[in-house]
Amino acid sequence: MAYSPEGPGDDPIGELVALLARLPSIGERTATRLAFHVLGGDAEYAKALGESLATVHDRVLECVHCGNYGAEEVCRICADPRRDERTLCVVARVPDLVAIERSGTFRGRYHVLHGLLSPLDGVGPEDLPLEKLVERTKESAIEEVIVATPLSVEGEATALYVAEVLGAAGVRVSRIASGVPHGGELEFTDQVTLGRALEGRKDI
Amino acid sequence: MAYSPEGPGDDPIGELVALLARLPSIGERTATRLAFHVLGGDAEYAKALGESLATVHDRVLECVHCGNYGAEEVCRICADPRRDERTLCVVARVPDLVAIERSGTFRGRYHVLHGLLSPLDGVGPEDLPLEKLVERTKESAIEEVIVATPLSVEGEATALYVAEVLGAAGVRVSRIASGVPHGGELEFTDQVTLGRALEGRKDI
Repeated sequence: MAYSPEGPGDDPIGELVALLARLPSIGERTATRLAFHVLGGDAEYAKALGESLATVHDRVLECVHCGNYGAEEVCRICADPRRDERTLCVVARVPDLVAIERSGTFRGRYHVLHGLLSPLDGVGPEDLPLEKLVERTKESAIEEVIVATPLSVEGEATALYVAEVLGAAGVRVSRIASGVPHGGELEFTDQVTLGRALEGRKDI
Repeated sequence: MAYSPEGPGDDPIGELVALLARLPSIGERTATRLAFHVLGGDAEYAKALGESLATVHDRVLECVHCGNYGAEEVCRICADPRRDERTLCVVARVPDLVAIERSGTFRGRYHVLHGLLSPLDGVGPEDLPLEKLVERTKESAIEEVIVATPLSVEGEATALYVAEVLGAAGVRVSRIASGVPHGGELEFTDQVTLGRALEGRKDI
């Protein structure tokens, strides 16, 4: 059951439903359910969530070095002297950085593009922080740049472009491996992935 | 990928994720996705949604007569002189009222209980606006009270209790029909519903 306001005028519930329905994968029915849940629940919670949403853009800063989110001008990772300053991992979005951090397998620093090359959506190289990436590799001790953009068309195109730009700067550029995921059944793996897994085979 | 904050300190993203994850059917993964979506999107939108959530409890009032939500002390339905004042429909929650309104098949007024009898959860008759319901039936032109609580254990128990309370007040009390829903396949209908459908059969 989706909420539909009756006529014009002040309609706080209808307004809330419309705003919630703009969130990804939240349809009008779910938005209605969430709105009535919030309204039927604790007012303090609604205020806390509202404040958090309203202020999150002001309280979260993009790191001046790498573009990661944080509460300071320089993010926790860039500020950490124990991180390996010789390797830099290029990611499309902050959640990708978070995922790599959770894997616990990378101790270098990051460079967040906040997007991918996508000519169809009007996103060109000038829309991504690539000049800054070149500068970083020139000015610091970076020896290798690992491109961890997604294994999608846009991710691959961006990876190639990054390699081209950094190749001119004389730094080693690598790409994360593509293959059958951990626990993955070959039977249910798509043919592109299988092709990549065979192509990227290693001696054992 | 769920967001896990690194250590203590100011962590607006972790805070937002934790608050979003308290919404029904929003797990930590979805909450993380929503938080990064909001953060990566328009700050104006985040502010509007946040304001709407933070203020919805203050801007939405419960109608002094029926308990429906509205922007005024008396809701649109109670204030509408064209509504049939002889029939009153008792519902558990406002979304149920909205659903009945959308069906366009009822022109009377409502009484919202904002809950159901549930001894296991500690909800007794004194926690529901039942005295007010009795008063309304005594003081006004109400001839019939239709109990449209859900067809669940709590909904049925509440309906029986309402009937008992109002029976003493001498008003006609009816219950919405239970049966196979519109478009429903008998093959996939549970046995309780089928039993009710048979029991409630009508001559054709």
